Amino acid sequence: MAIKNAFYAQSGGVTAVINASACGVIQTARKHPDQIGTVYAGRNGIIGALREELIDTTEESDETIEALLHTPGGAFGSCRYKLKNFTENRREYERLIEVFQAHNIGYFFYNGGGDSQDTAFKVSQLADRMGYPITCIGIPKTVDNDLPFTDCCPGFGSVAKYVATSILEASLDIRSMCESSTKVFIMEVMGRHAGWIAASGGLAGQNEHEPPHIILFPEIPFNRDAFLARVEHCVKSYGYCVIVASEGAQYEDGRFLADTGNKDAFGHTQLGGVAPALANMVKQALGYKYHWAVADYLQRAARHIASATDVEQAYAVGKAAVEMALAGKQAVMPVIVREQSRPYRWRIGEAPLSEVANQEKKMPIHYISDDGFGITQDCRDYLEPLIAGESFPPFDNGLPRVAHLRAVLAEKKLKTAFEI
Amino acid sequence: MAIKNAFYAQSGGVTAVINASACGVIQTARKHPDQIGTVYAGRNGIIGALREELIDTTEESDETIEALLHTPGGAFGSCRYKLKNFTENRREYERLIEVFQAHNIGYFFYNGGGDSQDTAFKVSQLADRMGYPITCIGIPKTVDNDLPFTDCCPGFGSVAKYVATSILEASLDIRSMCESSTKVFIMEVMGRHAGWIAASGGLAGQNEHEPPHIILFPEIPFNRDAFLARVEHCVKSYGYCVIVASEGAQYEDGRFLADTGNKDAFGHTQLGGVAPALANMVKQALGYKYHWAVADYLQRAARHIASATDVEQAYAVGKAAVEMALAGKQAVMPVIVREQSRPYRWRIGEAPLSEVANQEKKMPIHYISDDGFGITQDCRDYLEPLIAGESFPPFDNGLPRVAHLRAVLAEKKLKTAFEI
Repeated sequence: MAIKNAFYAQSGGVTAVINASACGVIQTARKHPDQIGTVYAGRNGIIGALREELIDTTEESDETIEALLHTPGGAFGSCRYKLKNFTENRREYERLIEVFQAHNIGYFFYNGGGDSQDTAFKVSQLADRMGYPITCIGIPKTVDNDLPFTDCCPGFGSVAKYVATSILEASLDIRSMCESSTKVFIMEVMGRHAGWIAASGGLAGQNEHEPPHIILFPEIPFNRDAFLARVEHCVKSYGYCVIVASEGAQYEDGRFLADTGNKDAFGHTQLGGVAPALANMVKQALGYKYHWAVADYLQRAARHIASATDVEQAYAVGKAAVEMALAGKQAVMPVIVREQSRPYRWRIGEAPLSEVANQEKKMPIHYISDDGFGITQDCRDYLEPLIAGESFPPFDNGLPRVAHLRAVLAEKKLKTAFEI
Repeated sequence: MAIKNAFYAQSGGVTAVINASACGVIQTARKHPDQIGTVYAGRNGIIGALREELIDTTEESDETIEALLHTPGGAFGSCRYKLKNFTENRREYERLIEVFQAHNIGYFFYNGGGDSQDTAFKVSQLADRMGYPITCIGIPKTVDNDLPFTDCCPGFGSVAKYVATSILEASLDIRSMCESSTKVFIMEVMGRHAGWIAASGGLAGQNEHEPPHIILFPEIPFNRDAFLARVEHCVKSYGYCVIVASEGAQYEDGRFLADTGNKDAFGHTQLGGVAPALANMVKQALGYKYHWAVADYLQRAARHIASATDVEQAYAVGKAAVEMALAGKQAVMPVIVREQSRPYRWRIGEAPLSEVANQEKKMPIHYISDDGFGITQDCRDYLEPLIAGESFPPFDNGLPRVAHLRAVLAEKKLKTAFEI
């Protein structure tokens, strides 16, 4: 069998550890030069395949590839671009085949969340539908922790560690100040559809007396009166109140809290965040001085406080993807299987892409406490191992050292450009 | 001479390293039991002195005091409370003397910013004005970096390191996504009056092509057109634009960018942040997809990414304060004297409280680049040593370990309470 090259692409919102998966793919492929030729990485994800913009990773030194382990963001560029189905946009698939054929690509590794695994599954059908045989393996990644079949998603554990650490630290700050100053602190975190990230803030405290005192989940309809009553109770009982609010927090009718309904001077809708909306609500109803933070990209880029468990798993799924491809598997995704929580033990398993695609794993409702404002012991038992261990990057001159890629594009072999 | 006790208090907004100063005070005092008796810490700062709520630090083990080195927030509680002058509120000073006398306090260590040093100076005058001799030493602390006489302020270096690290990490995230998604990222940082913290974000890049591409300082009047032109230039040239915005960014007429002028449904002014205000401005003028973050307390509480230099200096000023007291000094504050930048060398100096009080050190205008959107080499040379070195806390179960104080209050000796 002639040696085939591989195509690897990052897809969707990036994480602090997606490059660790890339490192796992490339290092493992480099150990099998008899079976895998060049690993090409799509420049800006699948867009790079369509445009024939293929980063030749053989141009990167072993040291640079190793440095991917501690580099946040998507080193090769990612994208939000979902392939349509075969009937809607056959031309896209034809183009992929042209590019793959031109560069002798026989392996396709796609590193992303649910939408991306759907794309990977479609590409795996190229053999049957369009006569181009290609080995397709998905690699899980998403801070949202919403992929099915896998116990957790690489990327999530590091966000969870960042959020829990930040809440712990900020809580000590407000506790110091609350006697004469700020009484309420609100931190807004990611998670539009599921409360996984918000839940992780709950790890900062051990019981309802300890901050965070309130967690707002997208799963629990927001009740203004109950919320304000709890804020007041906390300030009166503990002197202060710390709140973790999911960006997806919403009223019973589905309206997001972040939707202020206000218009600016031009008549445009005023875009707010959940945190400032809650802060204003507290100020107006209870008069408490507040502070609020919106972590946004900081939370998913914070490689400096990544979970060692997460880094290890992100690397492992990249490595396993290549090993699965070499073992002749097709249209599967390596997953994390939890064998036990204490002490934590996990192994790599596999799931069929046909079933992964477009499924969303919800947070179990028994992970949320009865009052809807906290997490249960079951939730703690699930989350704690995922934030375990530190994996500090090396630092130069006070700042994290990151990989600097040469990012040399392979010479184009096709005469035509492709507009996307 | 009978051995006198000491009173130590934390004042104003806390930092990631103010407890390192407390550690320096207490550990140094413990080495001189023949000269200093009990160190009492004010519960919630000077309020604790007025209320006779004195935390007896002899109840804390050596291990707990050592753990202050890596605990953010103000371990004994802080406050925003400024003593009035002698004529306006003589009763407050009389009360302080009653409490100090009742607990045999002969040393006063006050750990805070400019306002706090003013208070420390007033207390130092108790001997002359009210016949109660007490040794007063100020201990510098402020993330704002605006105290005079000292080259830098303990607390600032760690915020600077947090901001520069966060901008570096988030920039890698947006760079990955900009081809098909977010083009503009804005991070709002503290610094209402001075751009020191915003400037530190500039350390994440080495030149104008590297993020952050725009820094908005309170010192430079905001010009909407120039700002938008630069955003557009960056997106067109580099594909994305990263902005660090000081909370104090303001128009030429002094109006803060954060003041949206909007009213909510109840007619209250809608409180926003600089970051969302800028995001809306960019969206409406240029149509770019954006993300924004507001770090708020996270930046000044982030002990997990503290600067080792800052931790060392925070400890050193606490230690020096006790040594100055024992050397018979009065109404002074230990300061950081920079001997050279490369390699960085510093030593402890001292400044008279009479001159420290209520002075603000501005950022030199030659630290800001000519276009007003970046920092100069002089600024880099100043900032770089301050973020140097890591001082990671120990972690347990994935989270930073912090000091848990017993915080036992000394038995009250006065019959009267004091309303503040």
